[in-house]
Amino acid sequence: MSLNTFGHLFRVTTWGESHGPALGATIDGCPPGVPVNETDIQHWMDRRKPGQNKYTTQRKEADEVEILSGVFEGQTTGTPVQLMIRNTDQRSKDYGDIAEKFRPGHADITYWQKYGIRDYRGGGRSSARETAARVAAGGLARAALAELAPGLAVTGYMVGMGPHGIDRERFDWDQIARNPFWTPDAQAAETWAGYLDDLRKSGDSAGALIEVTARGVPVGLGAPVYGKLDTDLTAALMSINAVKGVEIGEGMAAAGLTGSTNADEIAMGPDGPVYNSNHAGGILGGISTGQDVVLRFAVKPTSSILTPRKTITKQGEPAEIVTKGRHDPCVGIRAVPVAEAMVACVLLDHLLLHRGQVGDGPRGAIGPS
Amino acid sequence: MSLNTFGHLFRVTTWGESHGPALGATIDGCPPGVPVNETDIQHWMDRRKPGQNKYTTQRKEADEVEILSGVFEGQTTGTPVQLMIRNTDQRSKDYGDIAEKFRPGHADITYWQKYGIRDYRGGGRSSARETAARVAAGGLARAALAELAPGLAVTGYMVGMGPHGIDRERFDWDQIARNPFWTPDAQAAETWAGYLDDLRKSGDSAGALIEVTARGVPVGLGAPVYGKLDTDLTAALMSINAVKGVEIGEGMAAAGLTGSTNADEIAMGPDGPVYNSNHAGGILGGISTGQDVVLRFAVKPTSSILTPRKTITKQGEPAEIVTKGRHDPCVGIRAVPVAEAMVACVLLDHLLLHRGQVGDGPRGAIGPS
Amino acid sequence: MSLNTFGHLFRVTTWGESHGPALGATIDGCPPGVPVNETDIQHWMDRRKPGQNKYTTQRKEADEVEILSGVFEGQTTGTPVQLMIRNTDQRSKDYGDIAEKFRPGHADITYWQKYGIRDYRGGGRSSARETAARVAAGGLARAALAELAPGLAVTGYMVGMGPHGIDRERFDWDQIARNPFWTPDAQAAETWAGYLDDLRKSGDSAGALIEVTARGVPVGLGAPVYGKLDTDLTAALMSINAVKGVEIGEGMAAAGLTGSTNADEIAMGPDGPVYNSNHAGGILGGISTGQDVVLRFAVKPTSSILTPRKTITKQGEPAEIVTKGRHDPCVGIRAVPVAEAMVACVLLDHLLLHRGQVGDGPRGAIGPS
Amino acid sequence: MSLNTFGHLFRVTTWGESHGPALGATIDGCPPGVPVNETDIQHWMDRRKPGQNKYTTQRKEADEVEILSGVFEGQTTGTPVQLMIRNTDQRSKDYGDIAEKFRPGHADITYWQKYGIRDYRGGGRSSARETAARVAAGGLARAALAELAPGLAVTGYMVGMGPHGIDRERFDWDQIARNPFWTPDAQAAETWAGYLDDLRKSGDSAGALIEVTARGVPVGLGAPVYGKLDTDLTAALMSINAVKGVEIGEGMAAAGLTGSTNADEIAMGPDGPVYNSNHAGGILGGISTGQDVVLRFAVKPTSSILTPRKTITKQGEPAEIVTKGRHDPCVGIRAVPVAEAMVACVLLDHLLLHRGQVGDGPRGAIGPS
Repeated sequence: MSLNTFGHLFRVTTWGESHGPALGATIDGCPPGVPVNETDIQHWMDRRKPGQNKYTTQRKEADEVEILSGVFEGQTTGTPVQLMIRNTDQRSKDYGDIAEKFRPGHADITYWQKYGIRDYRGGGRSSARETAARVAAGGLARAALAELAPGLAVTGYMVGMGPHGIDRERFDWDQIARNPFWTPDAQAAETWAGYLDDLRKSGDSAGALIEVTARGVPVGLGAPVYGKLDTDLTAALMSINAVKGVEIGEGMAAAGLTGSTNADEIAMGPDGPVYNSNHAGGILGGISTGQDVVLRFAVKPTSSILTPRKTITKQGEPAEIVTKGRHDPCVGIRAVPVAEAMVACVLLDHLLLHRGQVGDGPRGAIGPS
Repeated sequence: MSLNTFGHLFRVTTWGESHGPALGATIDGCPPGVPVNETDIQHWMDRRKPGQNKYTTQRKEADEVEILSGVFEGQTTGTPVQLMIRNTDQRSKDYGDIAEKFRPGHADITYWQKYGIRDYRGGGRSSARETAARVAAGGLARAALAELAPGLAVTGYMVGMGPHGIDRERFDWDQIARNPFWTPDAQAAETWAGYLDDLRKSGDSAGALIEVTARGVPVGLGAPVYGKLDTDLTAALMSINAVKGVEIGEGMAAAGLTGSTNADEIAMGPDGPVYNSNHAGGILGGISTGQDVVLRFAVKPTSSILTPRKTITKQGEPAEIVTKGRHDPCVGIRAVPVAEAMVACVLLDHLLLHRGQVGDGPRGAIGPS
Repeated sequence: MSLNTFGHLFRVTTWGESHGPALGATIDGCPPGVPVNETDIQHWMDRRKPGQNKYTTQRKEADEVEILSGVFEGQTTGTPVQLMIRNTDQRSKDYGDIAEKFRPGHADITYWQKYGIRDYRGGGRSSARETAARVAAGGLARAALAELAPGLAVTGYMVGMGPHGIDRERFDWDQIARNPFWTPDAQAAETWAGYLDDLRKSGDSAGALIEVTARGVPVGLGAPVYGKLDTDLTAALMSINAVKGVEIGEGMAAAGLTGSTNADEIAMGPDGPVYNSNHAGGILGGISTGQDVVLRFAVKPTSSILTPRKTITKQGEPAEIVTKGRHDPCVGIRAVPVAEAMVACVLLDHLLLHRGQVGDGPRGAIGPS
Repeated sequence: MSLNTFGHLFRVTTWGESHGPALGATIDGCPPGVPVNETDIQHWMDRRKPGQNKYTTQRKEADEVEILSGVFEGQTTGTPVQLMIRNTDQRSKDYGDIAEKFRPGHADITYWQKYGIRDYRGGGRSSARETAARVAAGGLARAALAELAPGLAVTGYMVGMGPHGIDRERFDWDQIARNPFWTPDAQAAETWAGYLDDLRKSGDSAGALIEVTARGVPVGLGAPVYGKLDTDLTAALMSINAVKGVEIGEGMAAAGLTGSTNADEIAMGPDGPVYNSNHAGGILGGISTGQDVVLRFAVKPTSSILTPRKTITKQGEPAEIVTKGRHDPCVGIRAVPVAEAMVACVLLDHLLLHRGQVGDGPRGAIGPS
């Protein structure tokens, strides 16, 4: 994982700025023979697309993905796949304020200090718009996973917004696609709607807690000791804008447990080992156990708010700034499909890596010999 | 970061098993001209060394590091540095039980299922013993940082054990080295001593919460959007055995905040920008701000406990297991120097990466033009 | 160097097929602040552009490069640069013959056997058309080198075609741009014109020998022992279509020399060490000496010829094939700007790598202490 | 391939200096379950071992390889394999002359200029002694290939020394192991013995031309367009000390051919496609065809000779130098087992890479459908 590329064998490089002509993902290492077309990928793009309801940015982007290479007659060829998305709604506006002042909590100041130049229009490369390319790449990863690991399903959903969490008793997988917050708790969706309306009106924003569950992950993915599955999943999520923490299984709460309560006991099921619990989050020693892989991450509230904040100008003069653009009151909502995409990419990558190092054949069996 | 290597330019590959003849770190990309010798590195090794008090494993290891290459007349030459540590206390014992049964919460089962073979003696490659090599590498990284970023200091310390946290009011940097738990809160150290004694006697173990602060980090380290400084730091910590969650700045708590409380306002100080708070943990947009970089991570309670646990054998038969070895009742204690080492390595790596991509010279200045 | 990417810090990934909608180069790691625009890069594209004279393919391509990201207000920003070239002359033709039969000497058969699918239109990814993206990347590398190593100049030229070599006595740098073969020997150009006319009429093709000289290369580039400057330069040239051999300095002829004739003696000049000869080709121990870096490589005659050749079909039936497309009678001609581009990319990459590992400052000095 | 590591999935990092305590290879990514022990690897080490006859350096080294990790009960475990070789004959001698003066044709001057420090004892890291670690890694690669590609055989042999080539009519595979030059032409061995005796007595040295043939290479290895099999093989050979040129199949001579003579026609054999010739050297479009892979490379005559040569000191003063050490009069001899090792490593690496990207299953079939 280096600079703008992630992945070992399924390597995704994203490129493009918020207000440039286009952005996209250059994907190297996709297996050949995967059936995929633009409609398949568009399906996932549409989940992340801005302007779909009042809780996400009002920027209107068609977010139409074009496949420029690597697919022939409806199948991948094993050569690089270029997925491009044109920027269409680069509203002509005065960026003077953002060009001269640094927004608190933003990458404005660090990009400037590091590079001595920055594309300030809409945040340039640091904009959440970059994540559109991730979702496109995730769409391709899902198409490949559908071939290589048919039962595997990756689902993201929101489990907390600001001070309000979900009630696990009300958890309903079918509910997730039915509300604007991708939450499995219908009642939480109602609470959040009110909470977010108030925040939006007051020119403020909210943080969010998101969970991703991968079901049907084959046993054995992950490569100790630095290419661990949990390490790569964590890095992939941490690389998403505004993410401040990532945890797996019990996560941060594991610090408070004792060994006798935390370790998942093992029994023998009809198809192999089964576990009596899943404190581990589906990964032991960096390698998948076959249980659900369960990750959570925290998204900070966006710093692009209407509330005036103290800052400085490029000349070092004190100033106040109000970010007027079209921003997400809860950027965590759109982080849900982005996180799913990242998890799909990492799982595919480790599946290929495993196949390369260990092969497809049966390895250590458990059962009567 | 792939398989057993981490880092972009300062690349560390660790090798070795718990009960093999030796383990070590092969380090490629250390800058030339860094003054370093075995004593310098031993200093850090000794902090992690087992058997120092009743709260860590009673395995006796001298953990003496040998520099086998890359250093000439007391300075690094720019060629690979090999740091080797001989295993001396590989107590001859009967491993039969562990060879046949899988310990719950351990990598035993996944290594077996993935590779079809595993060195079961002491956990083999999945043993926390591997972290000795990380600490050795960290010692070299610190020597290089002392040359390249003189004011930079990386300090780890424990802020929680089981249900007991520290009181930030009592935070005292000088206290950290004075208690067996590396905690800045003397009173917490006493509480934990009693708590851990009880757990140890009952054959159980405790989780821990650890914080690492890096002070004096130069502005501008980190490379968007996947080589972010926080991404690489998080991955480095997540790769440590038993870590289940990592956070930066406000971390998971950021999900509960609003934008107006979370973003750190900026002012102009005598030497450049200063921030009125540090919710961000010293990193914006993946690039260091010059503030303290503050990370926290949770270590699960070790699964190697005396309490009997249900499991299965390689033949799939149900069984009970008790892990009798010499294990840490709170493996988090020894994770403190390991985490420091990882953070030092990542910071050095990004310093070199920055120098490569951007150069040493001044970049974007802030102040009167 | 992996799959479709080359470079350590200046990382170039090319994508695209001969008859797809577009192709391009995704470039990660270009330093910030490099002045560059589409006209600068187009200058180099035009040197390679097909259809310029009767000795290159008659395919008409504007080969107009678009910068889609990474450049803002005329300067690179340090973020990925996307250089896209639309394919415009994808002549609608019957590819049936090539789709069913494998051309001898072509990648048709190996792509099919490896991937089970191939874009047969114009050779797909294995087409020399891919090299347009390399030249675009090389244009960016040259712009960066102009900033970072002002005196550095990379020049490619043809020194042999079929059985006819140049006469080194007639070597004239100014002649290179004045003939369709990029050769420094005007008389050779005339000989080759006749030779190639005859071959072309008879439906055959010619091989070529090309030399690239880099002048003004800073001392100290290259990283032993596998990231050697000569290793990376050789790999870069070997990756160009149809290249069958690469050599540096004395090259293959070094096998015939003795130590007393081959080693370049050293003397002290006004600005540092000077060498009495350059058998080494400007590189010792994988590191540049400051002398001219001199490389040569052989390009095989293209296998796409009008002469009927024996082959088989996908069904394994014997067949004859004649390749009617618009092909280069001497593909080596267009390899000249491609090789220059590759060398420019590698030199920039090693300059950044050196800066990262060793820094900009003075290192080992030679002279009175 | 970066700095001191080569390979994509089978990653070999060599470390160590000529006169340090030890050197070795850290190998990450070896598949699990490969039967291997120290004796297996020692077999290959002994082929390269110095001091075996009067044509190689008289340094006496046992070159005993120790396996320090990654092998358990006679099989690889999938974790890093550390292969260490102790240096035993670091003859205590006065290195003053070499410490102060730069040997012409050596890395002395470039290491100094790049790093500002160098281990001058015996050439340090730039010594051919480093290649012992390559041969050890190659031994492991061969053990893995024996499992994964049973029919594959890699054989290196000398085909030219100084001005004297072999006669292909006398080529005899069985002869290779029977003479000190690893040549298949018994008569050439006699000629070379006399030639080299004379050179050695006059304090001079000879260059050499070496060929490596890999038989039984599976179809489909290699990953276009920069991870080509020929690119990686070429880079691997070019990274060996003193190599100045590398070619495949027709090699440099391809420049002199026409398309109608060079392209290998295809026919259908009982087990798949067969070729009527092998101008390509077993690789088309960067992917193996199943034919023999044939490579040649030129080794320059060593510059460590008894003939006095002009040079300068660190102070820039003119000087003469005579290299008295124990050096190889024809360093190409010992390059034979080194080249075999490199080719074995690259083939294994690409076999794993292919398995990762494409899988083990049948891909594009040729034959009646």
